[in-house]
Amino acid sequence: MSFARIPIPFLTCRSLAWSTAKRTATTTPCEVRIVEVGPRDGLQNEPKLLPAATKIELINRLSGTGLKTIEATSFVSAKWVPQMGDNAEVLRGISKVRGISYPVLTPNIKGFESALAAGAEEVAVFGAASDAFSLKNVNATAAQAIERFRPVLKAAKENGVRVRGYVSTIVGCPYEGAIAPSAVVKVVEALYEMGCYEISLGDTIGVGTPGSMRRMLDEVTRAVPAKDLAVHCHDTYGQALSNILVSLDYGIRVVDASVSGLGGCPYARGASGNAATEDVVYMLHGMGLQTSVDLDKLIQVGRYICTELGRPSESKVNRAWKGPQ
Amino acid sequence: MSFARIPIPFLTCRSLAWSTAKRTATTTPCEVRIVEVGPRDGLQNEPKLLPAATKIELINRLSGTGLKTIEATSFVSAKWVPQMGDNAEVLRGISKVRGISYPVLTPNIKGFESALAAGAEEVAVFGAASDAFSLKNVNATAAQAIERFRPVLKAAKENGVRVRGYVSTIVGCPYEGAIAPSAVVKVVEALYEMGCYEISLGDTIGVGTPGSMRRMLDEVTRAVPAKDLAVHCHDTYGQALSNILVSLDYGIRVVDASVSGLGGCPYARGASGNAATEDVVYMLHGMGLQTSVDLDKLIQVGRYICTELGRPSESKVNRAWKGPQ
Repeated sequence: MSFARIPIPFLTCRSLAWSTAKRTATTTPCEVRIVEVGPRDGLQNEPKLLPAATKIELINRLSGTGLKTIEATSFVSAKWVPQMGDNAEVLRGISKVRGISYPVLTPNIKGFESALAAGAEEVAVFGAASDAFSLKNVNATAAQAIERFRPVLKAAKENGVRVRGYVSTIVGCPYEGAIAPSAVVKVVEALYEMGCYEISLGDTIGVGTPGSMRRMLDEVTRAVPAKDLAVHCHDTYGQALSNILVSLDYGIRVVDASVSGLGGCPYARGASGNAATEDVVYMLHGMGLQTSVDLDKLIQVGRYICTELGRPSESKVNRAWKGPQ
Repeated sequence: MSFARIPIPFLTCRSLAWSTAKRTATTTPCEVRIVEVGPRDGLQNEPKLLPAATKIELINRLSGTGLKTIEATSFVSAKWVPQMGDNAEVLRGISKVRGISYPVLTPNIKGFESALAAGAEEVAVFGAASDAFSLKNVNATAAQAIERFRPVLKAAKENGVRVRGYVSTIVGCPYEGAIAPSAVVKVVEALYEMGCYEISLGDTIGVGTPGSMRRMLDEVTRAVPAKDLAVHCHDTYGQALSNILVSLDYGIRVVDASVSGLGGCPYARGASGNAATEDVVYMLHGMGLQTSVDLDKLIQVGRYICTELGRPSESKVNRAWKGPQ
């Protein structure tokens, strides 16, 4: 019996190709790099403050899972983000493993200098696609805010430090609503041209769907090669994995995630963390993509940190896990 | 700057087409039909027993959301499923709305006759792709179990009753592990040829990923047209929405879901309900697909039934919802 094709605007082209074209076999290995942001983006948004020793233990345990990038902390003012007030102690205290990068967030040259003094070899700067969001957070438009990173990029280059760029509110903003893809392109291009080796596209409030992600990626992947892009999907509306799936389809191979979905308060209205690393890795492995991560070990780390925080894991894989299927 | 394409085995063909081919605009409306299974598959798996009046109220409220199919109850033995012991009372008690179908589960001719007597106009039968699962549950192989439905299909035809078919364990089984797509094809074809107008493909234990779903759908959509298939994805491993997204890509336009993810015990290990209807509808609307469902109203129904059950909603959209984005 033949397959009745129903045309729809969203998927027509890919559907036709995917299901009816002859699949071209390839032996190219397909690796997705996970950027584990739990110790920074996760813990920064957890109500419970952890001692530096626990954060160090978390990062050391994560280092044993096969992860290649672990965002360690943030060199922002402790006045604004008290959870990261122990940044230098954490960055100095971890056992750095060769082959693993431990980037830290640096909002300005002062933060960069402190990070450098504490031994940072990679830093991250963060802009927003939304002017309203940027004005509210740093009292500057999206374009103005990014200009402030020039001294950081310059100093980083002089010191052989790699710089990753974040762009937040890539599809939706709590103040502006929907964000035009052209606004994202502007900020992504600016950070890329300034020297960021990789730009992470953040759906900060997790409102994106495969529809809005596609519209955004259609434009952004024309401006910057997919190999230099990452996605950073919060799971507020449960769409993170679907949005990551769409991003993979655009050739993106770097995915930010947070072990056990750290940063999301279970059942607190609208407060959800990043995509849980366990769930992302489970999906990728199920698709035959490689991540270098040992899922069993990662699950144990998720359970460790959730016990320390006194909260359940936000990873469904972690809660269901009895071993590989 | 040109887009550097990275070939991967899983997505190569569709990636090439989707991102580089000229998109063909079409004005064809794209409707996805949601089969709301909360009152049956959901409540059947909730530890708290609800009075018939609450179930009737739930179904009546669901009827006001725009849903076109609401699975009402199950005519199985009350000895096996005490939650559904009030099936006739529920089916007789609801206010049936013209244009909405209220199918009920019927495991055998006895159940069918009771359902018919209570006014059922649509019933559902259920087989499994896994022999081990089928033997454990009904003491018959997958093929033998389906043969038992012949009298139901015959009686249904004589009485002008439509029959929907379910196939469980389509990608994984708790006893057998991974299920071969060919095993699914056999059962799907048998039910289809027996006269089921639609076959719902169930990932009963929610272990599927876009990888295993694709392998299964590659074969099943060659045997039965996608327009006569539905998917029924449990969210045990957080993959339900991704798996639904893959199914849409194969032309499937009927999705089973359960309001607020009923049937899943929050934080109980490995016990997760269906995809939450609210999250599915949010994704579909975000993709420009129509569902006929008013999401705002659906969210209110989810909150009502969760209050009755004394549990939080398993729908992330419901927990975050402040209105349309």
